[in-house]
Amino acid sequence: MMLSKTDASAAPLRVALFGAGRMGAIHAGTLDRHPGAQLAGIVDSYRANAESLAARYTVPSLDEDAVFADATIDAVVIASAADSHPHLIQRAVETKKAIFCEKPLARDLNAVRSVAHLVEQSKLPFLLAFNRRFDPDFAALVSRVREGEIGAIEFAVLTSRDPSPPPIDYILKSGGIFRETTIHDIDVARWLTGEDPVSVQATASSLTSQAMSDAGLADTVVLTMCMPSGAIVTINNSWRAAYGYDQRVEVLGKLGMLQVANRLQNGVTKMGGSGTWNANPEPFFLERYSNAYRSELDYFVTAVREGSLISPTVSDGLKALEIAYAAEESAKTGQMVALV
Amino acid sequence: MMLSKTDASAAPLRVALFGAGRMGAIHAGTLDRHPGAQLAGIVDSYRANAESLAARYTVPSLDEDAVFADATIDAVVIASAADSHPHLIQRAVETKKAIFCEKPLARDLNAVRSVAHLVEQSKLPFLLAFNRRFDPDFAALVSRVREGEIGAIEFAVLTSRDPSPPPIDYILKSGGIFRETTIHDIDVARWLTGEDPVSVQATASSLTSQAMSDAGLADTVVLTMCMPSGAIVTINNSWRAAYGYDQRVEVLGKLGMLQVANRLQNGVTKMGGSGTWNANPEPFFLERYSNAYRSELDYFVTAVREGSLISPTVSDGLKALEIAYAAEESAKTGQMVALV
Amino acid sequence: MMLSKTDASAAPLRVALFGAGRMGAIHAGTLDRHPGAQLAGIVDSYRANAESLAARYTVPSLDEDAVFADATIDAVVIASAADSHPHLIQRAVETKKAIFCEKPLARDLNAVRSVAHLVEQSKLPFLLAFNRRFDPDFAALVSRVREGEIGAIEFAVLTSRDPSPPPIDYILKSGGIFRETTIHDIDVARWLTGEDPVSVQATASSLTSQAMSDAGLADTVVLTMCMPSGAIVTINNSWRAAYGYDQRVEVLGKLGMLQVANRLQNGVTKMGGSGTWNANPEPFFLERYSNAYRSELDYFVTAVREGSLISPTVSDGLKALEIAYAAEESAKTGQMVALV
Amino acid sequence: MMLSKTDASAAPLRVALFGAGRMGAIHAGTLDRHPGAQLAGIVDSYRANAESLAARYTVPSLDEDAVFADATIDAVVIASAADSHPHLIQRAVETKKAIFCEKPLARDLNAVRSVAHLVEQSKLPFLLAFNRRFDPDFAALVSRVREGEIGAIEFAVLTSRDPSPPPIDYILKSGGIFRETTIHDIDVARWLTGEDPVSVQATASSLTSQAMSDAGLADTVVLTMCMPSGAIVTINNSWRAAYGYDQRVEVLGKLGMLQVANRLQNGVTKMGGSGTWNANPEPFFLERYSNAYRSELDYFVTAVREGSLISPTVSDGLKALEIAYAAEESAKTGQMVALV
Repeated sequence: MMLSKTDASAAPLRVALFGAGRMGAIHAGTLDRHPGAQLAGIVDSYRANAESLAARYTVPSLDEDAVFADATIDAVVIASAADSHPHLIQRAVETKKAIFCEKPLARDLNAVRSVAHLVEQSKLPFLLAFNRRFDPDFAALVSRVREGEIGAIEFAVLTSRDPSPPPIDYILKSGGIFRETTIHDIDVARWLTGEDPVSVQATASSLTSQAMSDAGLADTVVLTMCMPSGAIVTINNSWRAAYGYDQRVEVLGKLGMLQVANRLQNGVTKMGGSGTWNANPEPFFLERYSNAYRSELDYFVTAVREGSLISPTVSDGLKALEIAYAAEESAKTGQMVALV
Repeated sequence: MMLSKTDASAAPLRVALFGAGRMGAIHAGTLDRHPGAQLAGIVDSYRANAESLAARYTVPSLDEDAVFADATIDAVVIASAADSHPHLIQRAVETKKAIFCEKPLARDLNAVRSVAHLVEQSKLPFLLAFNRRFDPDFAALVSRVREGEIGAIEFAVLTSRDPSPPPIDYILKSGGIFRETTIHDIDVARWLTGEDPVSVQATASSLTSQAMSDAGLADTVVLTMCMPSGAIVTINNSWRAAYGYDQRVEVLGKLGMLQVANRLQNGVTKMGGSGTWNANPEPFFLERYSNAYRSELDYFVTAVREGSLISPTVSDGLKALEIAYAAEESAKTGQMVALV
Repeated sequence: MMLSKTDASAAPLRVALFGAGRMGAIHAGTLDRHPGAQLAGIVDSYRANAESLAARYTVPSLDEDAVFADATIDAVVIASAADSHPHLIQRAVETKKAIFCEKPLARDLNAVRSVAHLVEQSKLPFLLAFNRRFDPDFAALVSRVREGEIGAIEFAVLTSRDPSPPPIDYILKSGGIFRETTIHDIDVARWLTGEDPVSVQATASSLTSQAMSDAGLADTVVLTMCMPSGAIVTINNSWRAAYGYDQRVEVLGKLGMLQVANRLQNGVTKMGGSGTWNANPEPFFLERYSNAYRSELDYFVTAVREGSLISPTVSDGLKALEIAYAAEESAKTGQMVALV
Repeated sequence: MMLSKTDASAAPLRVALFGAGRMGAIHAGTLDRHPGAQLAGIVDSYRANAESLAARYTVPSLDEDAVFADATIDAVVIASAADSHPHLIQRAVETKKAIFCEKPLARDLNAVRSVAHLVEQSKLPFLLAFNRRFDPDFAALVSRVREGEIGAIEFAVLTSRDPSPPPIDYILKSGGIFRETTIHDIDVARWLTGEDPVSVQATASSLTSQAMSDAGLADTVVLTMCMPSGAIVTINNSWRAAYGYDQRVEVLGKLGMLQVANRLQNGVTKMGGSGTWNANPEPFFLERYSNAYRSELDYFVTAVREGSLISPTVSDGLKALEIAYAAEESAKTGQMVALV
């Protein structure tokens, strides 16, 4: 299935899409526009959803078995409900298809370990869609750090806050804020520093509603990690930010600091009798990371066709999840958790 | 050709594109993505250019006669060389096609008057592509002014500066900075205030090169207009800005000020020993107005299909050009020019 | 009266202050704090004002004759009503005192010419208090321009706007916006470019009230000057800015741009459901230029004691006023006015 | 010694100053300018320093005994070396003088407890000079939080970073970064939230030099506190910031966020070929908090004369130090420390 460079220009990558929801719709558009990709069909447990999205791009709505039975399909994009991920990954591995998978890999740590083992054994191209790695601002910051612009990293602050919490049922299924939200920042920390933390400390609180608090669910957390180099990375997350989706990075090094600021909704300023107003940050992830969602899938298609190495890997997903679990434990016990 | 609302969903608008250069490529992409449009073919005086762009969207490369002979083609997008504009507009009018036309309508004022007359008589849908009207920031500012957020307009400053001047040959053909660059700001001034100026004063200088100066060509200009309401609008243009493409608006009203700032190339800040750095504005118009280029053509397609009124009109183009000529005269004589 | 460098440390400069109003109070504080100055007494046509301010610094309240009869008084600071300026300058010249004088030198151009002639003949130390030359931001910008940071100046925009117009009686006495407000920007233009304009064009409007309009007084003006180098400087002034005192400079040169932004009232940002708020600019000149008011008088005291050259000179005041008159004429006739 | 309101206007507060170093010089200037204060004399263990500063304000240089023997001296400002603080406080208490004391109260926790007990028993006016409480931006933020502008506090991030570490000898004496630097942020956290933390977690690293690391001294720390309300406050400190003195606050509440940004050295922006430059933050505390240093002493003088309550109190100093010790312990053990 992996194409040699010579025939890359000849045959487009045929990709089946699982999931016709918000992320699925975005990925369908990206595949439709990519000159090296061909959207082979769309699968969704709600057939009507699949059909509606498929009609928009004049492609077939398929069922799962049809996809895995079709040897002309080179790759799958998994953007369906989280519960379906391990199963779809397993079938894709069995049928030797390249895999682009939305987070999470699976619901719990053991299942993720199994999936990761399976994928690594298969040596198939696999991309875990940690979208922030594909944001132009985040990527520019990381590449400037790598080039030594601020010297060795001493300290980093990662801020990500959602405008409002997900429904409690969803949180209970997803495993909570550390696994749902913090895991993205943990991945950014590992990517940015190029290191795995040696320890993690976390503090959590439940503030956004009585129901959240009654369910024992945290919505406001701080996590602090020590890296082998001595660098400290601290992450703060909240599930309530009245002003929108807050996504910032700052990295302090020996020679200075690099920061990524929020992207604003527009560039209009108002100066009036009672102050100067600017637009708020983008409202949520779909708007903030629209470029990243396109870039990550563009990159996947191109990398699979060229046979180049792909990251973030399944093991990046596993590692981030292990740290998220450690942070949960620290938040419960108050003790620092060592990560060997 | 104008579709009734009832059949709007049925038939896409079939559009032929003239010009396979930079703007043509952008418009081809927009038409390809618009669910209500169908790119019917591409014409370019360099046939190879047309073929290459056409291949990308799997559409035919056509010659001019074929387009105007084809009654199934509903509309034309004119993004070819400026000299071809009057001729193509005339043929489109004769064959009753809706017209989307890049600036300029024609090379000189008399020719523009003829074209404008022709188009207005025809009552065909016509859009003059003054792109800034479709920029989200400019449009938000204008709509907030209209809604009375800053009260009656008292004063506006329009700043637009190019990173570097066009080649002298091009300038000589295009008629100079007032007709080439200032005309955009003149259109913004008219759109913003909803008024036609009663007078214009201008000052011009030639600073960017000896050759420019030897050719008697201005590259740095200020133009000040009085509106019937008493509002003053001043425009400053330069063809040299080391930091990129500078596009700003500020409008002062009785109750406050609204401003549009430059869009920056990225959102990364660096703080080091010798100061704090941010990215520069976007380098030039293709980057700065990429959204506007998409929006203006999306709007045209939708408006033609729905049979709704379309602006900016051919008369907006004529009016802006008349003011540009008056400004040129003022810059030469030093006298204010009255515009009835 | 001019002190040689050797005795500079010995004797403080004894300074009498004319005017116990807002500016007088500021200058009294500066003189009190300056280790090289001694506040010798305060004069005001309202004796009670003089006494109250004098009491605060434990100095005598004096009458005018006493000041000019006292040979131990080295210098005068003239911050009294504008009408008194020519007379006080004349007496100070006659009694050979160094002079620090607030704008204006006199009410009309001929009177200013006489005063300027008198002062220049006297060769006495004289400072015309164009305060913006002593603002740290303006001064930093000008010195960076001089050092060549942006290459030759091509274009400058000077913005100054007052929160609200002065009373009409005051305007009628002061001669209007060009002589009252624009003159400061004209001085900045001359200081910044190091050039005297060869021509000026102006446009004016009356928008802030019916009374202003009925009195034929402008409150919103644009003035554009050509410099001998070809550089263009444009000034915009308004007497209504709902958001405070707006004082900005931008200078475009071959290699880039330098700008001075407004100073904000505080550094607090609020992000809420409907946007991001920052503080407005300082409300008016007393707050915005508090440092400049201190610096200009500190500089005067030090320069007089050291016998160094002092600027802005009386001739800077005359030149700026001549340009202001030319701008008034241009605003009336619509014609560019040549300035030899 | 405490003055009743009725005679407040009559007699100025006579204040002796201990310490003629940088802070002493600032306080001398403030006392000299305050209309309600009289600088009674200056004491310094280096008599020449005291004399030089005293000469500047034409006041006597005194020795310690003379100050405490002089019943006309109402108050002392203690800005001498840290070691002298407990002793001077004790003598001031014995002689019933109001006390303004720079941080620290004493070198170790037990000594601070003794001092605090002594001061509280005495009921004398006492101000611990936590300068940030007097910064206009910090104070504006806290007062807006109190007024409910962002609702209940959910999360706060306090950032303070020094441009470079103090000498190692100094650090060893001062007890390290938590007691030297973090203690200021701990005080801000208590002031801002109006709460005492129930727990603290800390992580520390040693990165700025081999010598620092060899001495086992931290220079980069994160501290996270839980408040009884559930609010989380996290503090980050570093002793190396190439770009200057970094002092920021952000507070997230139910209804939005308030932030204090750094104050910049000037307001000039440069846009050139390779980006847009602004000035860095103020270089260090003397520049950043110059207004606060004046305000805190102005406040002390006025409050003592009016007999109003004074804060921050000696107990604020003790409480902050206890938390700093707890953070040190947490950084060593990795365990959260509970604070009753």
